[in-house]
Amino acid sequence: MTTATDKIRLAKAAANSIGLASTHVKNDALRKIAQLLPERAERILAGNALDMERAAADGMSVGLQDRLRLDLGRIQALADAVLEVVELPDPVGDVIRGRQLPNGLKLQQVRVPFGVVGVIYEARPNVTVDIAALAIKSGNAAILRGGTAAENSNRELVAVIRDAMASAGIDPEVVQSVDEFGRPGAQEMMQAVGLIDVLIPRGGHSLIQTVLNESRVPVIETGEGIVHIFIDETARTDWAVDIIVNAKIQKIGACNAVETLLVHEKAYDRVMPAVVAALQAEKVTLHGDERTAEQFDNVVPATEQDWASEYLAMDLAIRSVANLDEALAHISKYSTKHTEAIITEDYTNAERFINEIDAAAVIVNASTRFTDGGEFGFGAEVGISTQKLHARGPMGLPELTSTKWIVRGTGHVRP
Amino acid sequence: MTTATDKIRLAKAAANSIGLASTHVKNDALRKIAQLLPERAERILAGNALDMERAAADGMSVGLQDRLRLDLGRIQALADAVLEVVELPDPVGDVIRGRQLPNGLKLQQVRVPFGVVGVIYEARPNVTVDIAALAIKSGNAAILRGGTAAENSNRELVAVIRDAMASAGIDPEVVQSVDEFGRPGAQEMMQAVGLIDVLIPRGGHSLIQTVLNESRVPVIETGEGIVHIFIDETARTDWAVDIIVNAKIQKIGACNAVETLLVHEKAYDRVMPAVVAALQAEKVTLHGDERTAEQFDNVVPATEQDWASEYLAMDLAIRSVANLDEALAHISKYSTKHTEAIITEDYTNAERFINEIDAAAVIVNASTRFTDGGEFGFGAEVGISTQKLHARGPMGLPELTSTKWIVRGTGHVRP
Repeated sequence: MTTATDKIRLAKAAANSIGLASTHVKNDALRKIAQLLPERAERILAGNALDMERAAADGMSVGLQDRLRLDLGRIQALADAVLEVVELPDPVGDVIRGRQLPNGLKLQQVRVPFGVVGVIYEARPNVTVDIAALAIKSGNAAILRGGTAAENSNRELVAVIRDAMASAGIDPEVVQSVDEFGRPGAQEMMQAVGLIDVLIPRGGHSLIQTVLNESRVPVIETGEGIVHIFIDETARTDWAVDIIVNAKIQKIGACNAVETLLVHEKAYDRVMPAVVAALQAEKVTLHGDERTAEQFDNVVPATEQDWASEYLAMDLAIRSVANLDEALAHISKYSTKHTEAIITEDYTNAERFINEIDAAAVIVNASTRFTDGGEFGFGAEVGISTQKLHARGPMGLPELTSTKWIVRGTGHVRP
Repeated sequence: MTTATDKIRLAKAAANSIGLASTHVKNDALRKIAQLLPERAERILAGNALDMERAAADGMSVGLQDRLRLDLGRIQALADAVLEVVELPDPVGDVIRGRQLPNGLKLQQVRVPFGVVGVIYEARPNVTVDIAALAIKSGNAAILRGGTAAENSNRELVAVIRDAMASAGIDPEVVQSVDEFGRPGAQEMMQAVGLIDVLIPRGGHSLIQTVLNESRVPVIETGEGIVHIFIDETARTDWAVDIIVNAKIQKIGACNAVETLLVHEKAYDRVMPAVVAALQAEKVTLHGDERTAEQFDNVVPATEQDWASEYLAMDLAIRSVANLDEALAHISKYSTKHTEAIITEDYTNAERFINEIDAAAVIVNASTRFTDGGEFGFGAEVGISTQKLHARGPMGLPELTSTKWIVRGTGHVRP
C-alpha cells in the first residue's frame, strides 16, 4: 500500500458491503468486536505499551498520557460500549417522508449511509473503537486517523475490528487506518473529494481549525464550547447555586461545562454571595470583573482573554451586566454557539433568550451539562456539532446518514 | 463601503431583523417586492439595457444573452414568482422533535434560519429575485453575487428588494449585493467564516467547482446532472419510448434531463428501433457505441468523452450493456449522483437498482424530469443538491434552515 489515498479507495470500493448489510449482519460484526477485544487484550496492551513508552520519552502531559493509556478494565469498557451500539436502532432504511403525488407517482425519502466517513482525532484509542462501531451500525465505511502517538494501539484495535467484520461476512476493507502515513495521510483525507463523503475532526481547537481550514471534503465541526450562564434579575438563588456548581464541576473537561457567568447587576448582591461561596468551597478559581474582584476575596482579575477562554478546568469567569441586552451582546461576541443558558423567573426574558441566542442548544433553568446525546436519548454520541449545516447539537446515528429520494412510477412523463 | 466584507458584516449585524420577523411581516415584504417590480420596470429595464449592450459588445453567446434579458413580461413573471413564495409555509419555528425527558426536562428541536446565506450565480437577474424571496421567507439575510455581466440589472432589482424590506419594517441591510466588487467580492464571500453560514453556488460546472475548491464557508453543491436511464431486459417498449423522449426533450437545458441511455443487450433489438425512431423524429443527435452506430443510421460514434458529458442539448449517448451489473458499474463511474432511472418489469432488478445506486434520486419507470422541487410538492426550489450533507435532492425552504435545541427545566442538574 503506497499511499493513504490507495487505502481510502479500497474502503470506498468496499463500502456497499457495509452499506447494504442488514442490521443483523452489522450487529453480528459489532458483537464479534466486543468478543475479540478482551480476547486480544495481550496484543492490544503490548501495542499500547509501545505508545506509552514513546509518550513518556516525548514528555507528553500527564493528562494526555492518561487518555492514551489502556488497561484490562478500559478494554472491557470499550467492548461494553460496542454492545450498547448493538442496542441502538439502525437508522438506515428509515422512511423520513413519503407520499403519493397527485399524478400517482410514489415518492419516498429514505435514510442511506453517507458511504465513507473520515475521522481525524488525537491519541485516544477509545475513539478508534467508538467511531468504528458507530460507522458500522450506520452502514458507513470508515477512514481513521488517530495520530502517530497512538499508532501501535490503534493498529491492534483496527485489526480486531477488521477481523470481526470478516467473520460477519463484511469486507474488512471498509475500515482503514491511515496512521502509518503520518500527517500526509491526514492531508490526503482532507483532499479526498469524491472518496470521503464527510470528515469529522474530534479533538482540540487547533486540530479542528486545521481541518476546517484545509479540508476540501465537507466537514462537521464538533465540540468547542465557551458556554455561558446568565443569572437574570429574577433568578432563584437556590437554582443558580445548584445549576452553576453542576455546570462547572460535574465534568470539568466537558465541552458543555460552563466557562463564563454573566450576572444581572440587580441580582448580583442577592445571588452572588451564595454562588461564590459554593464555587470556592469546590475550589473553583474565579476570574472576576472589577465588581467581583472588589466584592469577594481570592478572585483573579479577569482580562479580555478570560472571556474568550474555554478553560476546561476548575476556572470560571464572572462578569456583571446591566441587563439582558448586555448579556446577549456579550454572548454573541464570545460564544462558540454550543450551549447557552439563562436562569430566570421572567417569562419574556426566557422567551427572548431562547429566540435571540444563536447556539446549538439554549437552556432555561437547567445545567448546561444536559447538552449531550445520552441525556437527549440518542444513545452513543458521534460528537456535538457546533455548526449549522446538516447537524446541530448532539449527533447520534441518524446524523451519520444522508437520504435518497425514491420515485416509483408506471410510465409517468412530465406534461 | 470599502469592501465586500464590510457589507457582509452589515448583513450579519441586521440578520435578527429578518430572523425574528413574523411570517406576516416577511410576507408583507414579499408582497411589496411583487408590487414594486412592475412599478419600477422602467429603471430595471434601463439597467438591463446597459448589461445587454455590454454583453453584445463582449460577444456573449445568444443563449446567455437570452438568460440575461429582461422585459415587461419577465418582470411580471418575477413578481408572480415572489407571490408564490408568499403562499409557501414558513419553516421557521417548526418543531421537528419534542419530548419530555425522564427527568422532566422539556426538550424541543426547532427550525431556525441559518442566519446569513450567500449565493454566487451567473448573469441571471431572475435568480436575484428568486433567491432573495426564498431567503426572506426562511428568515435569512442574503449576500448576493450575481456576476459583473448582470451588474446594472441586479443593482436595480436589489434596490427594489431593499425598499420593500424597509417598507415592511425590516432592516434593508439584510439583503446585500457584492457585484460592485467583482471577483474579489466573491473571494471574500468564500472566506467569510463566521459571517456567512452557508454558500450556495448556482451555475455551470466551472463556477460550482471554483466555489467547492476555494470556499472555507460550508457549501451546498447543486445542480450538475449526468443522468442515466437503464433499459432493463424486461422493459416495456411503450414506456421506454415515452420516458426517454420526455426525459430528453421536455426541457433540454435542465439538470434532470437524461444524457446517457444504457440498454440491456437482450432488450436492444426489441426496444431500440422504436426508441431511436422517436428520438430521431425529435431531431435528437445520437452518440452511439459500436452496436448502435452499426444498427442505426445517422449515429455519431461515441467516445469516452460522451459518457462523461452533461450535454444540456439535443444530444444523447447510447450504450449497450451485458446486464444490470454492467449498467450499475457504468453509472457508478460516470454519475454525478443527481438522478438515475431504470425501466424494468423485474422486481428484483428494480429493488437492486434502488438500493445500489448512489444518487439524490432513483427513479423506476418514470421520467427523470420528476426530480424537481415543484413536482415533489415543495413549491419554489432553491436548487437540487447533489451532495450528501445537510440536503440531498430538491431543496425547498426547510433546507434553508438549521435547527436549535431548546431545553426547559426547573433547576435541573446532572447527577
